[in-house]
Amino acid sequence: METIFLFEIMGTATLVLLGTGVVANALLPGAKGNGGGPLMIHWGWGLAVFAGVYVGWGSGAHLNPAVTVGLFVSRESEFAPGIAADVPTMLVYFTAQLIGAFLGAVVAWLAYKKQYDGAEDAAVIKSTFCTDPAERSYGWNWVTESIATYTFVLVVLLFGATPTELGPLQVGLLVVGIGACLGGPTGYAINPVRDLGPRLAHALLPIRHKGGSDWAYAWVPIAGPLTGAVAAGLTAPVMLAG
Amino acid sequence: METIFLFEIMGTATLVLLGTGVVANALLPGAKGNGGGPLMIHWGWGLAVFAGVYVGWGSGAHLNPAVTVGLFVSRESEFAPGIAADVPTMLVYFTAQLIGAFLGAVVAWLAYKKQYDGAEDAAVIKSTFCTDPAERSYGWNWVTESIATYTFVLVVLLFGATPTELGPLQVGLLVVGIGACLGGPTGYAINPVRDLGPRLAHALLPIRHKGGSDWAYAWVPIAGPLTGAVAAGLTAPVMLAG
Amino acid sequence: METIFLFEIMGTATLVLLGTGVVANALLPGAKGNGGGPLMIHWGWGLAVFAGVYVGWGSGAHLNPAVTVGLFVSRESEFAPGIAADVPTMLVYFTAQLIGAFLGAVVAWLAYKKQYDGAEDAAVIKSTFCTDPAERSYGWNWVTESIATYTFVLVVLLFGATPTELGPLQVGLLVVGIGACLGGPTGYAINPVRDLGPRLAHALLPIRHKGGSDWAYAWVPIAGPLTGAVAAGLTAPVMLAG
Amino acid sequence: METIFLFEIMGTATLVLLGTGVVANALLPGAKGNGGGPLMIHWGWGLAVFAGVYVGWGSGAHLNPAVTVGLFVSRESEFAPGIAADVPTMLVYFTAQLIGAFLGAVVAWLAYKKQYDGAEDAAVIKSTFCTDPAERSYGWNWVTESIATYTFVLVVLLFGATPTELGPLQVGLLVVGIGACLGGPTGYAINPVRDLGPRLAHALLPIRHKGGSDWAYAWVPIAGPLTGAVAAGLTAPVMLAG
Repeated sequence: METIFLFEIMGTATLVLLGTGVVANALLPGAKGNGGGPLMIHWGWGLAVFAGVYVGWGSGAHLNPAVTVGLFVSRESEFAPGIAADVPTMLVYFTAQLIGAFLGAVVAWLAYKKQYDGAEDAAVIKSTFCTDPAERSYGWNWVTESIATYTFVLVVLLFGATPTELGPLQVGLLVVGIGACLGGPTGYAINPVRDLGPRLAHALLPIRHKGGSDWAYAWVPIAGPLTGAVAAGLTAPVMLAG
Repeated sequence: METIFLFEIMGTATLVLLGTGVVANALLPGAKGNGGGPLMIHWGWGLAVFAGVYVGWGSGAHLNPAVTVGLFVSRESEFAPGIAADVPTMLVYFTAQLIGAFLGAVVAWLAYKKQYDGAEDAAVIKSTFCTDPAERSYGWNWVTESIATYTFVLVVLLFGATPTELGPLQVGLLVVGIGACLGGPTGYAINPVRDLGPRLAHALLPIRHKGGSDWAYAWVPIAGPLTGAVAAGLTAPVMLAG
Repeated sequence: METIFLFEIMGTATLVLLGTGVVANALLPGAKGNGGGPLMIHWGWGLAVFAGVYVGWGSGAHLNPAVTVGLFVSRESEFAPGIAADVPTMLVYFTAQLIGAFLGAVVAWLAYKKQYDGAEDAAVIKSTFCTDPAERSYGWNWVTESIATYTFVLVVLLFGATPTELGPLQVGLLVVGIGACLGGPTGYAINPVRDLGPRLAHALLPIRHKGGSDWAYAWVPIAGPLTGAVAAGLTAPVMLAG
Repeated sequence: METIFLFEIMGTATLVLLGTGVVANALLPGAKGNGGGPLMIHWGWGLAVFAGVYVGWGSGAHLNPAVTVGLFVSRESEFAPGIAADVPTMLVYFTAQLIGAFLGAVVAWLAYKKQYDGAEDAAVIKSTFCTDPAERSYGWNWVTESIATYTFVLVVLLFGATPTELGPLQVGLLVVGIGACLGGPTGYAINPVRDLGPRLAHALLPIRHKGGSDWAYAWVPIAGPLTGAVAAGLTAPVMLAG
């Protein structure tokens, strides 16, 4: 359990530090990457996952409850070599992932402290922490997050069927693709803690000019990814038996 | 045959879901990737293929009649391990690919439902589904699609001569390159079903503010890719015997 | 010799078809990639090399006299498995590379025929075929091309010292990097035939609204790359003996 | 010691030549990449590292005192195969890295000589050589550089735990990610000599219209990276024992 905590916290913190950072870089006034555009954000998040997976190597680097749920539902016997896939262990993963995501967002805020201090638009500040929909419609936003996460987790669960030597680059590139292709409506949480952890950080940190943390929306990037993950977890065994 | 159906439908659906998605993201008003530019679209389609190939692993992940035709004409004995390369099987591939492409476009529409609902420009809406030429000239558009698909299929057929451990990334990057380099005149279908499937979806779905599906052009992104695929299938054995 | 001709012509044609294509896409009015920006061009050229190297596998895929010269000067005994590195063979490589580059540019013109027909700015038309300096200064332009090619060929000659399974992606990415980092002053020919072949095509093809082919500059993207290649060929053995 | 000098100088010079070049390309008026944007700069620096690592293969290609310090603090017994990790050797690495970085910047200036000659904004000229903060705040700038370098060095030290066949591409992509995600406040030195070497070159070269070299800031991109490297060097063994 110490192993899971160590690696999932450190890996998820790395992921969210970098991911929060790229949005801050693109959106906060005065940051050198301001105006870098959507593709910079997609590469940033993809390479955030790439880096986080190296850091979280000892726990299988889930870094995302949707991945953990997908593995569990697909009846993989282990979450990582030597770590049995059962419900109590899953809850340990979730907890560590949420802590890591929270910490990563706090460190990203410290890295961009002067830019956050200079930012005055509360909506922009919040959007560097957590996702929000391009057009608010809880049902359709849930659909989008479900579809995106289904695709993401299904491919992750099928990686093993096509051997390569790309290692963490596989999942990093997949995230770039999901972001570019399916991120338009909701900003692709595809990971409950990637949204909830930074949202908690946003709520708790003493950020100048911040507004509300939009808790009304917070359930969507949790429920959508979990729905997609369950569906992917049910699909993958069929395709692996193929 | 069930194997081909399962994998080609799922793989092509993944490909077209993501590919349609990136164009929707770049072009539909209000999507977060709006204005992301051509390079975002090229990466999106390339990584759409990357993801689709993982999903379609059991059938060799053709996902494209031009690839199937190229393999057939080049006299490969198998379309995938254990799947003989003959005409009836080829028709099964085509059918599954078309179904998958149609379904992928439908799911992309669902993922971007609110953005499609808010779009009012019929030409933009259609261009997220299927290709159209920058300048209409059926003959020259056919030439462009033939050249682009020839290059694409030839490189795919020659992948085996240069061993790497990149797996599906090879073809994904090749698609990024074809899009950036040869996509300017026609939007690089290079895959008959990538165009026809979403065009059917466009025609059938109850999309607000949609216009016609431009069936007059629909033969070009079928005939061009097939022409190029036949030529590549004739070239490859010469170069593999090299 | 037939082997060299087949593979160097086909590989270099693929390289120049795609490379000319990406510049046409970025610069010709009405092309879908118009305004795609410098990074799209860098990725296009890099993936053009990536694709060309797969096609030219049987001759070692030099596709560039600078690479051939670098190998020769570095005293590699073979240009490719079974192909001795001597002067007559080098001349065969050069000839095939030039033919391939010329043909690639012709095919690119055909692929973008309608966009070329619609283009009215002779300088833009020429710049899709061959390089020209941002600021004309033959001496300094030669310096820039020498430095860029030295870096390019040196890294190519050192690839073998660091085993990976990236295959042609290595050199493709290197070209993206050279383009982004050292392409600013002269447009990074780093390959004599990449410039001369398309320049000949520009001079000979019946392109509407074309102007002169700027033969006064044509020696720079030949002499610069050869200078850099010789220097890299002298450096590499020292570093490989390291 | 000759080995370290040869490879660290050549490798770091390649890294800084390309890295300085991409910023010159993006920022100097008249360069072809002018206006290429932040993502072009991130890819340029990442591929600069990619190329430099191939060149510096014989010394382990540290190219960065932060990497050397990280390895030393993490109690790796060797800096590279056959090179013991001790303090005198570390000083040799530092010296060679600084010389290489200085030389790389000089060569970049030569490659962009005409563009530098034409540039009139002293701040832009300086920013192509060395980093400067988006908002000056020595303490917070040090925090940002520490966080970015901690992440960078930690992932580098953990690469070995997740075998791939990506070779130098791993660290190249990591630099793209660090730049996009954490480069916003300070321009991501994450390498003391990457900043100090070019700053010295800026101070010494006869550059037209140059202003001061901002020595007041010069300690930050040295102290920050070293702080982060020490912290990463302390963290890595815990995670490798994991």
